[in-house]
Amino acid sequence: MQLQDYGFGTQIRKSPFFDATLRWGAKGFSVYNHMYIPRDFGDPVQNFWNLVNDAILCDVAVERQVEITGPDAARFTQMLTPRNLSNMAVGQCKYVLITNAEGGILNDPVLLRLGETHFWLSLADSDILLWAQGLAVHSGLDVTIREPDVSPLQLQGPKSGEVMRALFGDSIMDLRYYWWREMDLDGIPLIVSRTGWSSELGYEIYLRDGSRGNALWERIMATGLPLGLKPGHTSTIRRVEGGMLSYHADADMHTNPYELGLGRLVDLEMEAEFIGKAALRRIRDTGVTRKQVGLVIDGAPLDGPNTRFWTVWHGGTDVGHVTSAVHSPRLDRNIALAMVGAEWAEIGTRLEVVTDSGMTGATVAEKPFFDARKQLAAA
Amino acid sequence: MQLQDYGFGTQIRKSPFFDATLRWGAKGFSVYNHMYIPRDFGDPVQNFWNLVNDAILCDVAVERQVEITGPDAARFTQMLTPRNLSNMAVGQCKYVLITNAEGGILNDPVLLRLGETHFWLSLADSDILLWAQGLAVHSGLDVTIREPDVSPLQLQGPKSGEVMRALFGDSIMDLRYYWWREMDLDGIPLIVSRTGWSSELGYEIYLRDGSRGNALWERIMATGLPLGLKPGHTSTIRRVEGGMLSYHADADMHTNPYELGLGRLVDLEMEAEFIGKAALRRIRDTGVTRKQVGLVIDGAPLDGPNTRFWTVWHGGTDVGHVTSAVHSPRLDRNIALAMVGAEWAEIGTRLEVVTDSGMTGATVAEKPFFDARKQLAAA
Repeated sequence: MQLQDYGFGTQIRKSPFFDATLRWGAKGFSVYNHMYIPRDFGDPVQNFWNLVNDAILCDVAVERQVEITGPDAARFTQMLTPRNLSNMAVGQCKYVLITNAEGGILNDPVLLRLGETHFWLSLADSDILLWAQGLAVHSGLDVTIREPDVSPLQLQGPKSGEVMRALFGDSIMDLRYYWWREMDLDGIPLIVSRTGWSSELGYEIYLRDGSRGNALWERIMATGLPLGLKPGHTSTIRRVEGGMLSYHADADMHTNPYELGLGRLVDLEMEAEFIGKAALRRIRDTGVTRKQVGLVIDGAPLDGPNTRFWTVWHGGTDVGHVTSAVHSPRLDRNIALAMVGAEWAEIGTRLEVVTDSGMTGATVAEKPFFDARKQLAAA
Repeated sequence: MQLQDYGFGTQIRKSPFFDATLRWGAKGFSVYNHMYIPRDFGDPVQNFWNLVNDAILCDVAVERQVEITGPDAARFTQMLTPRNLSNMAVGQCKYVLITNAEGGILNDPVLLRLGETHFWLSLADSDILLWAQGLAVHSGLDVTIREPDVSPLQLQGPKSGEVMRALFGDSIMDLRYYWWREMDLDGIPLIVSRTGWSSELGYEIYLRDGSRGNALWERIMATGLPLGLKPGHTSTIRRVEGGMLSYHADADMHTNPYELGLGRLVDLEMEAEFIGKAALRRIRDTGVTRKQVGLVIDGAPLDGPNTRFWTVWHGGTDVGHVTSAVHSPRLDRNIALAMVGAEWAEIGTRLEVVTDSGMTGATVAEKPFFDARKQLAAA
């Protein structure tokens, strides 16, 4: 297929930054929320080093927004998630899980509260727009649910703060972790938040006018290039180091928050109702039979991320599967996220993994494998 | 990215037929319902001729099934679609639209009635599983909604009947258009229907055990090869000739059935309620402001399908956009589907289209551009 075309008609959407990413060297795309996302600029390891040493600009327009407005917007939004939103201020963001009636995870978006009755869910890869519209039909709540013209970029890495200062002035340095602010750049309307998917210092820049994608990308790169900014893409290496989830890989509709060790995102004591409350109470009370763990896999460095779910064995018993695995050049280890039977989840447990090159030993390990903030604190 | 890997981790699912399609020559994949679909076996024009002259086997496991069961399954399924299902027999299939409360199209699946209270929606590309589960929460209806382990193949083309006879015996020749039957092949559990996405004689073979994908593919190819069967993929050329929709390209949440000329799939007179009834009544009464049309585009043969929505002009006025365009080698014409202002929709209207190679003339034309059944009747 031709690079410029990405080939199969108009069925998959192009981001407002699509042409810009091609100009700046994008070599391969994946598809996420029915849209192309650049996932290769030639060398994923170099992209990782650019992210952890400098800063990268990534097209994540695939993070589609579900906008919830109307008099009952706050009540409806709380209904969508087990996380307690009662103390969420306008200006704040929260990482939330969306669960169905069985307590299964449908998505793990970042929620932004733009106003008392105005919310955005910045999505992982599933049509929560349909879930929310479906829920609303018989809910008796007065809400409007739609996808606005909003396309995020991620500006991530230790130098991202300096790039942001150069773009927006000193005042942006006050923006706190998981808060957002309304900004503009040469008249281009934006929301800027201190969030990301890298475990590094980072920002998301939400373009609110799809016709200005080229202008915004070029403006950021022109300002950032002298400060060390590179074009890039979300880094599998860094996000596995950080123990961050990739929806469909590490979690799906049949995964519950407790299996992921994300009980902190579930408040069963709050009065408000949310979808999945009864099921999650049952799960909490009976306990989970499997748990997500970190694994360090023995052997030669993996060539790239696993593209199959690798079976995990203990002796002759199939005890689970590896969901995401990659070689970290910084840790010089093959690191992975895996879902295994609860009795095999203890740190230090020795297991075997069937990788593409055969059966290999592995050890259950603490995650996140690498925590930039702990490193910074120790420095 | 490596062909074997399709490379960005486990976030995109592989079909049970993925390895088989690689072995049989798949060269490029797209993504549909969070899953890889082969869309290139080297030459899309040859694939078209294979389809219209012989028969092709296509991996369409991406057509995920939404299964609706439970005492209220029939009532709930009717709620999902404006098409009147009151006379739908067990054993029948129907092409239906799924609409939201605004009458916008969320999907255009084939519905199978497997039992009095047992339905499958065989999906186009959107998470109707989430829409249906969301709707069910406050519906007061007793239904179970899940994605079963079902992965369809399409066996399409004039020789598909002979291949089916060789696989399943003479009795399969009685299977009527848009009916299904439960079958097995070497013990592999299947549903077989006379449906497809090609406007040719064709069948869909729904594998009901994902672990048997290789066995099923090889069995069908071994039987079919001497009868002219080729491995292939859904053909953009043939489906545009047939005027068939590709969801996200030719229709989306902001498209209503009347704009597509699909009023026959909406029954506003039936007593049963369905989502979107009030909105669709309003739209029918006021009329639509834009309509889907067929276009024949002047100039040299297009290289491949359009990958952007091309603007359609009349004189100096922007009157709409081309959604799907391709060169038909059989008709020796560039044919397209377009959404244009209702006043420009009359057959014979001359318009201009901005293709990748500049402004070109175009004429509104009758669709389907090619109807195999009319040809057969005339022969």
